[in-house]
Amino acid sequence: MEPMQGNRLRESARVVTRYRAGHASVVEDHVAAEEPMETRILWEQDGPLHRKSIAVTMRTPGDDFALAAGFLFSEGLLATRNDIADISYCRDEHEQQAHNIVSVTLRPGLAFDAARLNRNFYTTSSCGVCGKASLDALSIGGHQPLVSRQQLEAAVLSALPRTLRAAQPVFESTGGLHGAGLFDNDGNLIALKEDVGRHNAVDKLIGEQFLAGSTPLDNRVLMLSGRASFELVQKALAAGIPVVAAVGAPSSLAIDIAEAFGITLAGFVRPESFNVYTGRERILT
Amino acid sequence: MEPMQGNRLRESARVVTRYRAGHASVVEDHVAAEEPMETRILWEQDGPLHRKSIAVTMRTPGDDFALAAGFLFSEGLLATRNDIADISYCRDEHEQQAHNIVSVTLRPGLAFDAARLNRNFYTTSSCGVCGKASLDALSIGGHQPLVSRQQLEAAVLSALPRTLRAAQPVFESTGGLHGAGLFDNDGNLIALKEDVGRHNAVDKLIGEQFLAGSTPLDNRVLMLSGRASFELVQKALAAGIPVVAAVGAPSSLAIDIAEAFGITLAGFVRPESFNVYTGRERILT
Repeated sequence: MEPMQGNRLRESARVVTRYRAGHASVVEDHVAAEEPMETRILWEQDGPLHRKSIAVTMRTPGDDFALAAGFLFSEGLLATRNDIADISYCRDEHEQQAHNIVSVTLRPGLAFDAARLNRNFYTTSSCGVCGKASLDALSIGGHQPLVSRQQLEAAVLSALPRTLRAAQPVFESTGGLHGAGLFDNDGNLIALKEDVGRHNAVDKLIGEQFLAGSTPLDNRVLMLSGRASFELVQKALAAGIPVVAAVGAPSSLAIDIAEAFGITLAGFVRPESFNVYTGRERILT
Repeated sequence: MEPMQGNRLRESARVVTRYRAGHASVVEDHVAAEEPMETRILWEQDGPLHRKSIAVTMRTPGDDFALAAGFLFSEGLLATRNDIADISYCRDEHEQQAHNIVSVTLRPGLAFDAARLNRNFYTTSSCGVCGKASLDALSIGGHQPLVSRQQLEAAVLSALPRTLRAAQPVFESTGGLHGAGLFDNDGNLIALKEDVGRHNAVDKLIGEQFLAGSTPLDNRVLMLSGRASFELVQKALAAGIPVVAAVGAPSSLAIDIAEAFGITLAGFVRPESFNVYTGRERILT
């Protein structure tokens, strides 16, 4: 399985009218590319090959196989990279669509219950019904609290946003992409992904590690360029990442899930300051 | 139909450890509330009342009926407010869930095709498959380009973000909410909604106007506190709003849909400057 993902552009040039101090000028500018991507699962069952469309997301092209794998893994549909027999762009469609459909073929013998999928989405991805129910459902879904003894210096945590921003090439030229970075406890950047959707950036990051056989990421820090929502912390939990740090604010439910599953959650991370909402025993001063 | 939406909190107090210049202190802070909300449709068909769960979204509690109505309207499932016979919180569930399920009962005789719903989501909400296909699908979906002769002064546009920010009470205390504002062409704020999800903020804003019978909003400006994505411009199109302005950057597909449907799209809006990507004939200097 050698992903050939094509040479898709992550940014696009557009003619823009720029207004400044009452004057208008026409210039060329770059904007972040956004295109829909459909993820399909193919699996054998009682002989024939079945096919099901799982999700369509608006994403920035690039790292598409990692995006598909990371999404399926963090939703609990894949356990190890060996669950995947093949990932490829769908070649049934016409040329224009060729790089916007990713087909994930499951290994022969891996049972896939399409009905369970719907339940799974219902109970873990975006719901429960109240927050309490969501957390219960996650627990039932097989996740245990993370027990990593990982620790890192407060000064290391404070420095992560600057490192992340400096490494975001497309953000610099377009101002329009979310970034997700994976760091070690000394503040070294392991991997970085960018996307118009912050969920996608995290799925790409986790998916790449999953495909490389590196999950669980129990000695890593996930750094987010924006805010920390429930779903992003949930993805960190699925990948076994014990520390999540965000440039922006966390939501109430992000804090609840971090607390319930032993994840350290930091927000408003700046060069001189940050807030820790849960798991402060991992932060050394 | 008098919405009784309860007294839900849009923010939540948490104990936080604050690190500043090497020192840690424990303080109380406020974070934006995030809880899941399920939207259900109820409709009569051949006698019995049918019920279908349409979507679950992670949202900030408040304006829940507007959120449900705005979502269904911008997805093309509702045409006028008279299509709704009733909106209420589901009372079948236990107390804890009582304010996280919204049931929308369609007017008697309004046909609702659940299979069409899936196609509808597939072709308009988050996809097509390539950008071209998305735009084609939208066109087929019944939207015509907006022909509003609305115009506004560049200086008025530049001033909108400051007005929006000043009117965002929960953002001020939590730093964690997206805002969506509806303005007239003189820069007066008509309505403002906040949410942890930017799609939700726009759905709440449009939904409230829809329920009041005020759509199409063909003489209004939609101001977004963040970036402008395809789906947000699509919602403006559904509501007939001819001008969309964002504090952040637009994506490539947001520009494409604005261009195709005659919407003026501005980004990076600041007190002294902004960029116009499409429809600059509506901006007066």
